[in-house]
Amino acid sequence: MQTNMRREIDEIPEAAARLLERSATRLAQAGAALRAKDPAFLVTIARGSSDHAALFLKYAIELTTGRPVASLGPSLASIYGADLKLGGAAAIAISQSGKSPDIVAMAEAATRAGAVSIALTNTLPSPIAEACTHPLDILAGPEIAVAATKSYVNSIVAGLAVLGEWTGDATLKHAVADLPNQLAKAVKLDWQDFAGDLAEAESLYVLGRGPALAIASEAALKFKETSGMHAEAYSAAEVLHGPVALVGHRFPVLVLAARDAAEASVADIADGMSAKGAVVHVTSARAGKAKRLPFVETGHPLTDALALILPFYGFVEAWSRSRGLNPDAPENLKKVTETR
Amino acid sequence: MQTNMRREIDEIPEAAARLLERSATRLAQAGAALRAKDPAFLVTIARGSSDHAALFLKYAIELTTGRPVASLGPSLASIYGADLKLGGAAAIAISQSGKSPDIVAMAEAATRAGAVSIALTNTLPSPIAEACTHPLDILAGPEIAVAATKSYVNSIVAGLAVLGEWTGDATLKHAVADLPNQLAKAVKLDWQDFAGDLAEAESLYVLGRGPALAIASEAALKFKETSGMHAEAYSAAEVLHGPVALVGHRFPVLVLAARDAAEASVADIADGMSAKGAVVHVTSARAGKAKRLPFVETGHPLTDALALILPFYGFVEAWSRSRGLNPDAPENLKKVTETR
Repeated sequence: MQTNMRREIDEIPEAAARLLERSATRLAQAGAALRAKDPAFLVTIARGSSDHAALFLKYAIELTTGRPVASLGPSLASIYGADLKLGGAAAIAISQSGKSPDIVAMAEAATRAGAVSIALTNTLPSPIAEACTHPLDILAGPEIAVAATKSYVNSIVAGLAVLGEWTGDATLKHAVADLPNQLAKAVKLDWQDFAGDLAEAESLYVLGRGPALAIASEAALKFKETSGMHAEAYSAAEVLHGPVALVGHRFPVLVLAARDAAEASVADIADGMSAKGAVVHVTSARAGKAKRLPFVETGHPLTDALALILPFYGFVEAWSRSRGLNPDAPENLKKVTETR
Repeated sequence: MQTNMRREIDEIPEAAARLLERSATRLAQAGAALRAKDPAFLVTIARGSSDHAALFLKYAIELTTGRPVASLGPSLASIYGADLKLGGAAAIAISQSGKSPDIVAMAEAATRAGAVSIALTNTLPSPIAEACTHPLDILAGPEIAVAATKSYVNSIVAGLAVLGEWTGDATLKHAVADLPNQLAKAVKLDWQDFAGDLAEAESLYVLGRGPALAIASEAALKFKETSGMHAEAYSAAEVLHGPVALVGHRFPVLVLAARDAAEASVADIADGMSAKGAVVHVTSARAGKAKRLPFVETGHPLTDALALILPFYGFVEAWSRSRGLNPDAPENLKKVTETR
């Protein structure tokens, strides 16, 4: 039987197309507001999968505009009552349900301080939409599986579309417009080879660098949510500063490389771990020793990284079922988590 | 036989006192430079343990000054060649060895852009010191064990001292001056009760919130480095947004609570996981169901969080030996890691 999660993964290309078509005006307005503000820096406000979308947008914004992006712990406002100085800034709040109290409190604080505040949410009306100057409906459509998939991808698509409008970067705008086509190719890729090497492992690393680190973070969370496995994400460079201690014989490592400036170094790190006896799979044709997983070459480093999540989602959904679990309804989890 | 790691842990209070005494003038100068600059935001540049020190300082600065702090991926400069706009900012680069090429490249970029740039390093002269406007010797003294302990604590002590000078906050300045005394008490605390509950586990979570999340991050890394265990750090709120899926019967959770505004919520989360059958230890007298670990009440929320790392270091060093490992020389690791 097809799970809701599998059906929702298959809907991703269509959901991305719907977002770009129906929200075009609002995405352009948010981009124009950022261009007018020319913020010295930005902040992001999010948790869970949404925070991984925020991390993706952090890299995308820093690489494209040179403006630093600070990820704010939502507790700063909700628990600590910190008086953040955000007047010269822009804020991006991401919440699928639009109602976790700590996210809403922090977004309200940013708006009150005079920041341009953009809400990326799948629920309108919602408290997060009311808290922000530019509420954007990511139009992922109903998402029934507890593990977010469509809404993760569409949060990033919306952010990239706003970034394209903000900067007027023609290459990026073209790549975003072409995303639904690329995602339709990516959703068909098969990563089941990786499953064969996971064997009895309960623990693994997922590595990336730059925007692909945000994809790795989302992938590691999905392993936990749907398969009860302790996957942890690291930057492919950061992991060498200590965490590599765990990487011994047969330790599984999934390395997500995009076609960007980091690809060569990421492939080298994958090969290095492979040489130590780890079981390494990598989305790069540059690897010599690590096993290669198929990927879609989208023609732009940012969309290229984003497209990696689709074959991963397909893989982890099947992996969850193969372990006798139900990826639609993980134990211990509910769809909407509210924290203060 | 006493390990180098144990000896270095015991030296922490003395190292902190040495730093505050001998570097007083330079700490004051760095604080004065920040006061003069009044940066709209700050950035941090670090990896590994040093990055956990940077996370601590991010919370400390945001809570105390209201200025957002962006953690920059060092690859932005070294790999992606991003042209970051940091003129109105201040930068804090942390590197014990002072020479990882990606950290140095990013610090040089910040200085070149006109940022006040502070280097916290245990090695002078060093490339990171040359790259920054305000090089500060953290004076941890020789650190032989591969796992950083003294240098982690002194990086934070130096940062807090600069913050006190920057803001002139009398309470914080007093707490920092009193830190060597508090650390001397903390180093004597015994957390071996937690060891009894780790049993055969290979995987666990370490939770914190606010500044204590930075301590949890450092603790999780030390579990990996010295004991080959997959410990992962999470915000006590963030963990509820998905990762809690792993927290079932007998799953070990170490919860680091400080005497701050988050303590009540953190103790509640610890009790909630305990009620689900997890084995939870928490540094709070407010917990009803989770087991309590001893802590030092330092009188200030920031120093209170920092003091938690000392009994943890003592615990993990003994735990590593009890597993037949050598905490001084973890497999697969060397003292200085250089990445690009």
